[in-house]
Amino acid sequence: MEKTTYIYGIRAIIEAIESKKEIAKVYLLKDADGVLMQQLKNTARKNNIAVSYVPVEKLDHLAKGNHQGAAASISPVKFHNLETVLENTDIEINPLFLLLDGVTDVRNFGAIIRTAECTGVKAIVVSEKGSAPINAATIKTSAGAVFNIPICKVNHIKDAIYLLQAFGIKSVGANEKTSNLLYDVDLNIPVAIVMGSEDRGINPSTLKVLDHIVKLPMQGDIASLNVSVACGAMLYEAVRQRL
Amino acid sequence: MEKTTYIYGIRAIIEAIESKKEIAKVYLLKDADGVLMQQLKNTARKNNIAVSYVPVEKLDHLAKGNHQGAAASISPVKFHNLETVLENTDIEINPLFLLLDGVTDVRNFGAIIRTAECTGVKAIVVSEKGSAPINAATIKTSAGAVFNIPICKVNHIKDAIYLLQAFGIKSVGANEKTSNLLYDVDLNIPVAIVMGSEDRGINPSTLKVLDHIVKLPMQGDIASLNVSVACGAMLYEAVRQRL
Repeated sequence: MEKTTYIYGIRAIIEAIESKKEIAKVYLLKDADGVLMQQLKNTARKNNIAVSYVPVEKLDHLAKGNHQGAAASISPVKFHNLETVLENTDIEINPLFLLLDGVTDVRNFGAIIRTAECTGVKAIVVSEKGSAPINAATIKTSAGAVFNIPICKVNHIKDAIYLLQAFGIKSVGANEKTSNLLYDVDLNIPVAIVMGSEDRGINPSTLKVLDHIVKLPMQGDIASLNVSVACGAMLYEAVRQRL
Repeated sequence: MEKTTYIYGIRAIIEAIESKKEIAKVYLLKDADGVLMQQLKNTARKNNIAVSYVPVEKLDHLAKGNHQGAAASISPVKFHNLETVLENTDIEINPLFLLLDGVTDVRNFGAIIRTAECTGVKAIVVSEKGSAPINAATIKTSAGAVFNIPICKVNHIKDAIYLLQAFGIKSVGANEKTSNLLYDVDLNIPVAIVMGSEDRGINPSTLKVLDHIVKLPMQGDIASLNVSVACGAMLYEAVRQRL
């Protein structure tokens, strides 16, 4: 299993971001100040990189050197550009995509990546912020599938849906409040399955732009599934329809 | 969330077992000896209760009192008798059962219990030994479903399959080495889905007595799913066929 790699020092991190290194997250000292620190904050914001403000003990632990109040984790995978992926995908083969609108648990994320690889998903799309990181636990629960399937980051999942629509790909999101069953929707077309976060589901603004909102039938009192289980049931229905 | 309750003292544990308290596991001091200790070991064995041999520090931590080299965890749920459950199940409604042949991870077990409750499973059957315990983590990942669905323990999953067959209930197990697809089997009958352990799948001796062995279609290089995801895809295919 890979361990997360950290870099540190303000200039080093700015340089890494500007040279398009895959930075997962920037850790800054609480109340850190100064011109260069402000430049780092701006660079991170412009590049949609999550920033976390932490006590000095955390930085000392991450950096093991003179960190100048800043450290950053390098993502173990290279993220892909969704538009480039789409340009290189043959629409005639009815490609299947998976959009995750805020899955935050790394074990769920890993299990979902693993399922996506087994069901022939062409690419997984996550949002820059509010998504589970790709760390050692994600890699382990994905059984290594994280290295076999393109993962794309977008500002908002809505942006990905608009882009997919421009390429003729429909979006089908899971939401328990609809009366439409998954089984009544045609998934043997170019389509993206959209799953929401563990606690709130798909964002209301994302729901509005979906082509279809569907649910899995629910019995019992709990009436809610683990997101990786629900995602598996959705993706396997697409597989079944395509047989 | 419930915390695990422990009892301790040799006589107390023997008494608890003989009065049919739901003992999840017995913890004994390594190298513990003596007539009474031997009696406890025999009682645990006769009642198919798992025994773990631990250092004194573990017992001191569990017991917080004079443990005499023995402690036991009480299960937070009462297990049901499969035969009684079957006698009280209407076969005309095509009941759905779930058999777990060695699922050991508590988070997988919890997610599976949650899915079972959402898919109308009448009862879950696990084996006495080699199964994940029902502890605080299981309860949490089950979203509380563990309290809503009967869970039965049997010596061996094979015993459960024979018993189900006597009641006219077929068994369908998941195994990646078959060429039969899940989707080609009729699940709109009285049926039990059988899932194997995370690392080895269904036991070879269990496989031999199944009515059907099926697989989910697999693409990609990993070619194996998380067991709770695979279980969800199997159970939802049963749900789909029954709509």
